[in-house]
Amino acid sequence: MTDIDRRAAALLALLAPFAAGAARAQAATPPPAAANMIQGMDLTGYDPKVHWMGDEQIAMLMYPGMTVMDLIGPHCMFGSMMGATIHLVAKSLDPVTSDAGVTIIPTATFDTCPRDLTVLFTPGGTDGTLAAATDPTTLAFMSDRGARAKYVTSVCSGSLILGAAGLLRGYKATSHWSVRDVLAGFGAIPTDARVVRDRNRITGAGVTAGLDFGLTMVAELRDRTYAECSQLMSEYDPHPPFNAGSLNTAPAEAKIPMVQMLAEFTNKAEALAKASAV
Amino acid sequence: MTDIDRRAAALLALLAPFAAGAARAQAATPPPAAANMIQGMDLTGYDPKVHWMGDEQIAMLMYPGMTVMDLIGPHCMFGSMMGATIHLVAKSLDPVTSDAGVTIIPTATFDTCPRDLTVLFTPGGTDGTLAAATDPTTLAFMSDRGARAKYVTSVCSGSLILGAAGLLRGYKATSHWSVRDVLAGFGAIPTDARVVRDRNRITGAGVTAGLDFGLTMVAELRDRTYAECSQLMSEYDPHPPFNAGSLNTAPAEAKIPMVQMLAEFTNKAEALAKASAV
Repeated sequence: MTDIDRRAAALLALLAPFAAGAARAQAATPPPAAANMIQGMDLTGYDPKVHWMGDEQIAMLMYPGMTVMDLIGPHCMFGSMMGATIHLVAKSLDPVTSDAGVTIIPTATFDTCPRDLTVLFTPGGTDGTLAAATDPTTLAFMSDRGARAKYVTSVCSGSLILGAAGLLRGYKATSHWSVRDVLAGFGAIPTDARVVRDRNRITGAGVTAGLDFGLTMVAELRDRTYAECSQLMSEYDPHPPFNAGSLNTAPAEAKIPMVQMLAEFTNKAEALAKASAV
Repeated sequence: MTDIDRRAAALLALLAPFAAGAARAQAATPPPAAANMIQGMDLTGYDPKVHWMGDEQIAMLMYPGMTVMDLIGPHCMFGSMMGATIHLVAKSLDPVTSDAGVTIIPTATFDTCPRDLTVLFTPGGTDGTLAAATDPTTLAFMSDRGARAKYVTSVCSGSLILGAAGLLRGYKATSHWSVRDVLAGFGAIPTDARVVRDRNRITGAGVTAGLDFGLTMVAELRDRTYAECSQLMSEYDPHPPFNAGSLNTAPAEAKIPMVQMLAEFTNKAEALAKASAV
């Protein structure tokens, strides 16, 4: 039994008593097929309206130069969803190295990734993201899966890739602060919030917003109590030692150099959006 | 030029004007060797008392079943430190798979990891962590490097590994809430805080505390302004959609099943501590 199987088994056994209460606040969805027997436990009679077990197909795009925290923050929350399958999808199964040098092995390619996804997700980055957002194969994959996915999502500058794939036209969306306004060039409506939802498009702000995005997704895909369990398990009770996480709060000593440092990236992203609009 | 080189070059050029101000509040350290010319920029005359460039050697332990977010949260902040070298260290260079199925390729082994480290770090997990904390080769590595490292650190249940390696005797330390009190069995002083520092031991609470831990480390290794730049770059302005991240705030519907679910892990960790105390 893997760790995940063990967690799933333990959680199923333990969370059942809370199903009835949570169900009152939740809309019904059909139970996953063949879910009655899991890890030897007979789930007959357990209330399928509470989403303790699911069968989501989640595809998380990976590409060279991605910011790995953009990927792992959401993965931390998606990974707590029992029964969900997470595909780390890249062009090939070759290992993918992030901008800060973390190398991850994909689990699926553009060809082997399921065609019908519950969630399509992309992380951001800087130059690597611009490269992915101008790569025809990557854009064709995102456009194809995005057209049918139940949710089309991103964290950080990953929304540039969604935009370049034509998936944000007419939708409110957010991004890393350095390129949020650039989204207008893709026909999106740039929106300043930690997590922005417009119909089935759900986008997160920069990097660490992936945790808030991830919890939002767990509540959406399962229910609030499940998300609260994920939050407690990951002890997400943030206490940043400083108050510099946004342009509104950062002191000038941090804000000015960071805005200047990212100016070239902002300019390149604007050029990309202009080119995509043609 | 890699993304990181480009960032380093841009940041060096842009942050120099702020050096003088920040320097007033910072203690002096010698400038890194041969730092005068970096990426073609002559840094002669730039104030070395501000720690914009460093040469830290940071070793982050990896082992099968680790919680990948425990690793990547701190890495997100360590990775913003220009000039630092991060070693993802494992028993061998074979890919390491996390508890939730993310497979990362190590960059160093116990043999090739530098002997004198600025920071020794370990992530946590559940069964995988207990396995690492009872593996003689892993404990020998941690004990050896920990004896000389400038900082000995962990996030989440990684402190069980520090404890088992004998690195926490007489030190205040924290861990994931499920095993924090277990640390007493290793001779540590369990302390309820997001980030706990006792001399050169710096430990973080569960999983997502790695971000707060990471920022604390950046401020320690460089300076506060540098950490604020890292915080703004990673847009760490948390807005959890729920308030369930600690035992003090989580509703009973989340708290009771999670405490029950982790009870077996807590018991196993206690048994480990008892065995280690012999």
